[in-house]
Amino acid sequence: MIRFSSDYTEGAHPQILKALIDTNMAQTGGYGEDPYCDEAKALILKALGAEPSQHPVVHFLVGGTQTNLTVIAACLRPHQGVLCAPTGHINVHETGAVEACGHKVLPLPGIQESSLPYRQYGKITAAQVEEAVLSHQANGAFEHIVQPGMVYISHPTEYGTLYTKEEMTALSAVCRKYGLPLFVDGARLSYGLAAHKHDPAYDLTLRDLVELTDVFYIGGTKVGLLFGEAVVIMNPAIARDFRYLMKQKGGMLAKGRLLGVQFGSAFLPAEDDPGLTLYESMGRHAVRLAQKMKEGFRSAGFPLFIDSPTNQQFIILPDELLPKLAEDFAFEPFDRFDETHQIIRFCSSWATPEENVDTLIQALHTLSGK
Amino acid sequence: MIRFSSDYTEGAHPQILKALIDTNMAQTGGYGEDPYCDEAKALILKALGAEPSQHPVVHFLVGGTQTNLTVIAACLRPHQGVLCAPTGHINVHETGAVEACGHKVLPLPGIQESSLPYRQYGKITAAQVEEAVLSHQANGAFEHIVQPGMVYISHPTEYGTLYTKEEMTALSAVCRKYGLPLFVDGARLSYGLAAHKHDPAYDLTLRDLVELTDVFYIGGTKVGLLFGEAVVIMNPAIARDFRYLMKQKGGMLAKGRLLGVQFGSAFLPAEDDPGLTLYESMGRHAVRLAQKMKEGFRSAGFPLFIDSPTNQQFIILPDELLPKLAEDFAFEPFDRFDETHQIIRFCSSWATPEENVDTLIQALHTLSGK
Amino acid sequence: MIRFSSDYTEGAHPQILKALIDTNMAQTGGYGEDPYCDEAKALILKALGAEPSQHPVVHFLVGGTQTNLTVIAACLRPHQGVLCAPTGHINVHETGAVEACGHKVLPLPGIQESSLPYRQYGKITAAQVEEAVLSHQANGAFEHIVQPGMVYISHPTEYGTLYTKEEMTALSAVCRKYGLPLFVDGARLSYGLAAHKHDPAYDLTLRDLVELTDVFYIGGTKVGLLFGEAVVIMNPAIARDFRYLMKQKGGMLAKGRLLGVQFGSAFLPAEDDPGLTLYESMGRHAVRLAQKMKEGFRSAGFPLFIDSPTNQQFIILPDELLPKLAEDFAFEPFDRFDETHQIIRFCSSWATPEENVDTLIQALHTLSGK
Amino acid sequence: MIRFSSDYTEGAHPQILKALIDTNMAQTGGYGEDPYCDEAKALILKALGAEPSQHPVVHFLVGGTQTNLTVIAACLRPHQGVLCAPTGHINVHETGAVEACGHKVLPLPGIQESSLPYRQYGKITAAQVEEAVLSHQANGAFEHIVQPGMVYISHPTEYGTLYTKEEMTALSAVCRKYGLPLFVDGARLSYGLAAHKHDPAYDLTLRDLVELTDVFYIGGTKVGLLFGEAVVIMNPAIARDFRYLMKQKGGMLAKGRLLGVQFGSAFLPAEDDPGLTLYESMGRHAVRLAQKMKEGFRSAGFPLFIDSPTNQQFIILPDELLPKLAEDFAFEPFDRFDETHQIIRFCSSWATPEENVDTLIQALHTLSGK
Repeated sequence: MIRFSSDYTEGAHPQILKALIDTNMAQTGGYGEDPYCDEAKALILKALGAEPSQHPVVHFLVGGTQTNLTVIAACLRPHQGVLCAPTGHINVHETGAVEACGHKVLPLPGIQESSLPYRQYGKITAAQVEEAVLSHQANGAFEHIVQPGMVYISHPTEYGTLYTKEEMTALSAVCRKYGLPLFVDGARLSYGLAAHKHDPAYDLTLRDLVELTDVFYIGGTKVGLLFGEAVVIMNPAIARDFRYLMKQKGGMLAKGRLLGVQFGSAFLPAEDDPGLTLYESMGRHAVRLAQKMKEGFRSAGFPLFIDSPTNQQFIILPDELLPKLAEDFAFEPFDRFDETHQIIRFCSSWATPEENVDTLIQALHTLSGK
Repeated sequence: MIRFSSDYTEGAHPQILKALIDTNMAQTGGYGEDPYCDEAKALILKALGAEPSQHPVVHFLVGGTQTNLTVIAACLRPHQGVLCAPTGHINVHETGAVEACGHKVLPLPGIQESSLPYRQYGKITAAQVEEAVLSHQANGAFEHIVQPGMVYISHPTEYGTLYTKEEMTALSAVCRKYGLPLFVDGARLSYGLAAHKHDPAYDLTLRDLVELTDVFYIGGTKVGLLFGEAVVIMNPAIARDFRYLMKQKGGMLAKGRLLGVQFGSAFLPAEDDPGLTLYESMGRHAVRLAQKMKEGFRSAGFPLFIDSPTNQQFIILPDELLPKLAEDFAFEPFDRFDETHQIIRFCSSWATPEENVDTLIQALHTLSGK
Repeated sequence: MIRFSSDYTEGAHPQILKALIDTNMAQTGGYGEDPYCDEAKALILKALGAEPSQHPVVHFLVGGTQTNLTVIAACLRPHQGVLCAPTGHINVHETGAVEACGHKVLPLPGIQESSLPYRQYGKITAAQVEEAVLSHQANGAFEHIVQPGMVYISHPTEYGTLYTKEEMTALSAVCRKYGLPLFVDGARLSYGLAAHKHDPAYDLTLRDLVELTDVFYIGGTKVGLLFGEAVVIMNPAIARDFRYLMKQKGGMLAKGRLLGVQFGSAFLPAEDDPGLTLYESMGRHAVRLAQKMKEGFRSAGFPLFIDSPTNQQFIILPDELLPKLAEDFAFEPFDRFDETHQIIRFCSSWATPEENVDTLIQALHTLSGK
Repeated sequence: MIRFSSDYTEGAHPQILKALIDTNMAQTGGYGEDPYCDEAKALILKALGAEPSQHPVVHFLVGGTQTNLTVIAACLRPHQGVLCAPTGHINVHETGAVEACGHKVLPLPGIQESSLPYRQYGKITAAQVEEAVLSHQANGAFEHIVQPGMVYISHPTEYGTLYTKEEMTALSAVCRKYGLPLFVDGARLSYGLAAHKHDPAYDLTLRDLVELTDVFYIGGTKVGLLFGEAVVIMNPAIARDFRYLMKQKGGMLAKGRLLGVQFGSAFLPAEDDPGLTLYESMGRHAVRLAQKMKEGFRSAGFPLFIDSPTNQQFIILPDELLPKLAEDFAFEPFDRFDETHQIIRFCSSWATPEENVDTLIQALHTLSGK
């Protein structure tokens, strides 16, 4: 069985695992106040290119849902909600974690995804955010309605799509115009940053996130760490007392140094990919194989649902072929396409061996007879 | 610097780390639905001696606060609170995590700790629980007052003290009499179970917890795992939909197999301690060294604050000696004892080398001049 | 200025106000434990025709949002959400009150209102509920998604539409099949019950609510009381400890007898409407005038947006006529219809004088020139 | 049966009821946006003597628990709690309403009431608040502990005691020093203000509250209104979006004008008490009769538990006399005093007839044989 079902099917990248092994018996204080965390934060800040005058703050949390709920709880007052795409992870796949903190998730209405170009799937626009705010303000009984209090986006999105720098700049501008913190869920950020190598249109950089957002996170769980997300907070109002919220929400790891050791390792040079940090290198590996996978789907004659530039690929497969394919491969049924076809997601990751991709492509050609 | 400041200053026991290394590149599904978790659960159930007819359920979470808040949220309706000792971890050191889930923590009043024998510090009694329930029922305006909805205790407690089987049986009986789920926080459970070897009065077993409680957890973070707590649920009403709550509260690890691999390893035989599981063995190691430490404190002439049977030791040290001691050792100031003395906590753990204990005892003798 | 903007523009029906005056200086205990509340509950139970063996329970709360959030908090566990129409009051106009209790509101998707017949606007169907439940169960990662835990509907709806007994019976059956409590928001219940006199298709009775729902409320604020909603709980699991939740959520009135006095008065015979309780009579008055209003709109040549059988009427008016109409009348802009027209809501109530309706109709004829 | 069991046993003061009757059929908009509310706010601001430059804001809510939870939710971030006396209403008698909003109530420890002079019962001091803040800051692991975020006091307290201007000034200073909003629960404020006439030591005025607090409320439910509390917010950060929180928490009355009509009436001149507003006059009436009651208790030979300057009186009565007394009078058992005596609370109010007090005093003399 070869698994393409997600990007968290293995443990940690060997270089990261080695760092854990090497530091295993060292004694440190707990809760993220240790030299490994300090060093990892310094490396991340260097990679971000953030100025000290911008007062960037980095915290480490264990997982994505935990990170999302903690950041959102830190941003909102009780009567405020968080604007997002209807397909946003917080709206669909976190069991109401945001609502359990007292806040309504406010999916932006109005756009049927099938009416959009592929590139816009799972994304929201500055115009949508502005319309939501103005519509709220225009409503005479507005205090009867949840107040938009922040904006949540994913980069890459649940569809593997990406914001361009221009789009993110526009979102940022509208958020600042209306005082809404902009939060970017970067669970798969490395895979988003790596898309640039294959298509220069995807030009958003880490440095841009520093300039354009209030808070974002650099995902580790899906990019080569055993677990861990690094939250970067640029807005001091959100940074204030953030560790209290981490502790309250159950997100402050006792052996916090495990996060420092892992992120510290990920932001050192990759041992076998000159000029890149390990974090960049892992992203590039996954995206290169994902693009190869995509070419394989095309050459085998299966249509893409989305021409995804990142590590998640979505193709349309006939129901009748799925049982055969499932004998050797794990993949994720994403949605039904029509009466006889499903949209199937295949993920590559930092861990995917190239031969697994070759085997998959071969199998699809065999199935399609091409 | 030698650290006795907590029992989570190192990474994982080598046998557990090895299991993580050995399974690192295996592919599995996520969120704890994988063969490693299945196997670990089976090993734990075997160690518990729970009958299948008791329908025990095991879940793995990452840390203690997260486990406490998830279990408590699963037990209570909105108007109910959780009875506990005033020193209970949930009342003091979790930044209001239970309140953030909407529930009042109800510390049991009325007993000054200094009026108690050492063995009762940090504990609550069946009589106290019954009095709290009856006092609530007696009050004519009782729906204006939070309803006691469950009981939380720690074993060992924050003072390193332990419940006897008789005490736990009485607590269990009163909880069942009034329909209150009994929840045992076992963050340091292994250290509690190991006390038996040094003093047969400490006779509570894993099997007793199965019989007497509604839910308890077997702590891993403080006992040789990188992280992880294994929740054992005996009461089906609490078990129902528990994974939803884990996900909502941010406690469902994406690479859940890491918890299965670690707990599975901990419940296999210890490689160098015949006849014991690794989990038992790690507890015994820590407690043996803690008892040695205690003897050293005594022989150096420093009074004990509590004659603790577990891995946390509390001694009374003069303020004037602390700076010198702090040059070489990390320890935790627990509380002020009087104008010129503090209560200091020293922890041993699965990882403590015996020579560190010897060095500490030597240093204390030097300081005291004995 | 004549107000048709809502059904709470006046104080209380004179018969109800008189009861408040007559009992003003009587001394009673607080919090709804007084003879007036007891008597009112007995009168309501009589009107409901509930059998003692059904253990119906009645509680009085002050307002609608408070009632909705308290009932919903009493029904759900933390990971559960409440299914409703997208236009449901709890989803749109209660500032996230349900989310502030920790629960996601789950608007049922999939039906464009403009594709429905008028009679279905604002309603949900048994089939929709079943599909939502099955879709949740079918999803492999279902614990990542909020679990449907109950169903909320309004009768009449926000569009003034009504469920038939057949529709409510089907909803009830599917709710019971899947263990979902069915909750009916009856803020305007009297206006719904009165529709029967004008169209026998609207055949749902109080007695049917007793048989088919788990909990519903009989609205007083919009039907002749100064304030007040009477919650009727048929499901003992919801009734349990309900007064605790009332108190916690701020909904237990200190001078609770004010609610008893008012509801007691409303469920006595109407002084000038033989054979009816005052509650029924007030509903009939409003609906008769609403139907007259509707005929007036038609005869003046303005199209109805909905052929509403209750006290809320929705007509389509050209933007250009609104400023003139607003000089003499207050009304509620409900939604935009097209570039040049709005949907306007006019409410009658228990308090509407017939001459106000005549004046409105006359004004509309003048405006339309018909 | 004559009731002294609370100060909410009757309806409304006749002058207030008359205002409700006179305005009953007037049409207004809803939710507190009407001329009656505007006028009442203007009258209250005049009575407060607040400068426009201080930007005082007044909102009306229905009841005390609702007001407390809404104000506290408006003040705190998620990790913050509210400091108060252990006997504070929010800590004891609101069914965990504050916790249900996610916040821990932080009773100030350390002072046994029986060691205090009567006048300090139920109160907290500036020194206690400062110590709590410093103790929190001193703690090395402070983010594991709930952060003190505001201070709640009652004036009068649950014991009928009062803060002097000097005490309140000191509290205010320490709150401002540490950035803690100071919130005064004035459920019985009128009875506190009236104490001045009997003892000039009680010198705190409405104007002082304006100067010294961030937010307070003027209680109506216990002082002659059917229901209602007027929140006065001096701190703009708390005032921001306050109506959203009122709506979300179920505290925005649909017929909001009922609150405006009542408070407007209460802040007009008393018809039969020249030179006073009705609100002042009602307070004075109750306190005069309470002091008469107190003298009666003394002359009948029953000791006072507290020499209360307000409308709540606490005396110590032998258990054996209570059944006889309960035949004719309702009163509240407050607490046990010793094996054979209870502390009993008797309340006067705006509604108490002087002859009821005389009858009670007579009965007590008969019981004591004096």
